[in-house]
Amino acid sequence: MKITLQNPVYLEAYAAIGGKAEKEGPLGAYFDEIDETERFGQETWEQSESEMQRRALSAALKKANLADQDIGLLFAGDLMNQCTSSSYGLLSFDIPQVGLYGACSTAAESIALAAMSCDLTARPAAAVTSSHFCSAERQFRYPLEYGGQRTPTAQRTVTGSGAFILSRKKSPIRVDSVMFGRSIDSKISDICNMGAAMAPAAVDTLSRYMKESGRAPCDFHTIVTGDLGREGYELTKIMMAQKKMPIDAVYDDCGLLVYHSDIQDMHAGGSGCGCSAVVGATKLFPDMESGKIKDLLFIGTGALMSPTSVQQGLSIAGIAHLVHLTREDF
Amino acid sequence: MKITLQNPVYLEAYAAIGGKAEKEGPLGAYFDEIDETERFGQETWEQSESEMQRRALSAALKKANLADQDIGLLFAGDLMNQCTSSSYGLLSFDIPQVGLYGACSTAAESIALAAMSCDLTARPAAAVTSSHFCSAERQFRYPLEYGGQRTPTAQRTVTGSGAFILSRKKSPIRVDSVMFGRSIDSKISDICNMGAAMAPAAVDTLSRYMKESGRAPCDFHTIVTGDLGREGYELTKIMMAQKKMPIDAVYDDCGLLVYHSDIQDMHAGGSGCGCSAVVGATKLFPDMESGKIKDLLFIGTGALMSPTSVQQGLSIAGIAHLVHLTREDF
Repeated sequence: MKITLQNPVYLEAYAAIGGKAEKEGPLGAYFDEIDETERFGQETWEQSESEMQRRALSAALKKANLADQDIGLLFAGDLMNQCTSSSYGLLSFDIPQVGLYGACSTAAESIALAAMSCDLTARPAAAVTSSHFCSAERQFRYPLEYGGQRTPTAQRTVTGSGAFILSRKKSPIRVDSVMFGRSIDSKISDICNMGAAMAPAAVDTLSRYMKESGRAPCDFHTIVTGDLGREGYELTKIMMAQKKMPIDAVYDDCGLLVYHSDIQDMHAGGSGCGCSAVVGATKLFPDMESGKIKDLLFIGTGALMSPTSVQQGLSIAGIAHLVHLTREDF
Repeated sequence: MKITLQNPVYLEAYAAIGGKAEKEGPLGAYFDEIDETERFGQETWEQSESEMQRRALSAALKKANLADQDIGLLFAGDLMNQCTSSSYGLLSFDIPQVGLYGACSTAAESIALAAMSCDLTARPAAAVTSSHFCSAERQFRYPLEYGGQRTPTAQRTVTGSGAFILSRKKSPIRVDSVMFGRSIDSKISDICNMGAAMAPAAVDTLSRYMKESGRAPCDFHTIVTGDLGREGYELTKIMMAQKKMPIDAVYDDCGLLVYHSDIQDMHAGGSGCGCSAVVGATKLFPDMESGKIKDLLFIGTGALMSPTSVQQGLSIAGIAHLVHLTREDF
């Protein structure tokens, strides 16, 4: 179901916080704040991730010149068990909060829901997501001290947080419509190849959106998934071509945009709730503001497994949520 | 922010699935399906919980005589790491899905969002949540085989799942308004006393709702929190009295309604994402349909910690989301 907003809702402000590898990537200069120690003054990696969320939302609110009480609802999520990065990171804000879990799709999920909330209530809404390489590694894979090796199809969890303010106040970037994804199980069970697990979900959402819109991918200026990485990106291009909806000319992926593929040894690219959030806030949305991107399909992709489900031999379901953003003058 | 729906949205159908202890409780006769083995034909407790979600939604859809494609959006969540009970349990449904995490508040959170979605899009929306004693014990506390003892303030995770269909089709129960909670840290760090950790959040949401509505608790027929248990229930009564908003005459708690306090040895009562869901579907909403309850404030309460955050010494933040349901003829 494509949900076209009934009122004009705009992306009023956004901010991104990042770590060392993100600073060294091609978007490093565009973050609002970087801490190369990736600790953000905190004692544990989990609390460092929470602190990134706090700083990202603070920065976005400041840019929009809004206070807590101006925000009607806050949509937030992360990859940690029980989504504690959001719970603890956003505790100091006096804003009603809706907790989400959509794995790496949460940035698009939260922006989509915030836009719907703003449409329905007329009050500004906020969206925040994060991921942290060090907290994710020890939760999903191995403690850093173990020095585990990664396969070529593996992605690296981005250390970063992005925050977004949606409001009725006119600004260059308008949310046209949103579409939520169906969970798709393509029977991939390799936890080091989440791109392949998520690509069919991206294709499902994107092709449904084309069908319901009566448009073709090339009718859009830019289509960006986040974050399928190299493997999922290539698979998505192939599957869309098989559906007679080629996307190569307009397509990119947040997992490929966040790091240098040549000089940074990041295998298949970036991943994590923070990846598409920071790529949106440091590149895609600034490019929309400057007019470089005319309209954008921003498709968050998530792999819905847990370490327990993987240990129990279940395959990895993927999901993809879409947000269609347009230049107001486009 | 109290969100009053702009169109009439109704609770069209609902269903509840439960386990052995729930069958032996006062609501046992009103479940749609019970499996006393609590396995639901599955090999692991996690998959048993997923299967409950699948059966709950199937039953609710059947009652509403709706197919997958009739549902615009599905809002779901649970207590498992990365919310896998929902991801895997609802995989067989061909419905776009929004993943949520709100700890034990998720039933109210999902119903509130489904109602907003139905208001905005006119399409029916579904809400599903679950919890399972056996999957929760080994994730949050100890494996069952350990035979851990529980303190008097501890609650028991309900084995159950509830599913709810919200639509524009006129039926006796209408959703009047919803209000999302702020996360409140009352500095409780005892993981065996989540009632005390959550009660301040319930009081915050309830008192904000009274203020924004210009009403007093006694103006409502029934106010039910879910699920504070004995400790949180008593604290909520005291704190509301301190705010000059006594609620004793109209107040109950799902954690107290789900088990017999005398003959079932459940300490402070029930808890878990499934608790308020099954109490809603087996008692509160049937009582509304029969006219026994005229209008209802259904307040889901959640404790937003994880085992990791507790081990790291953080206190437990609480959150409470409210749904105001009325009899259409009231």
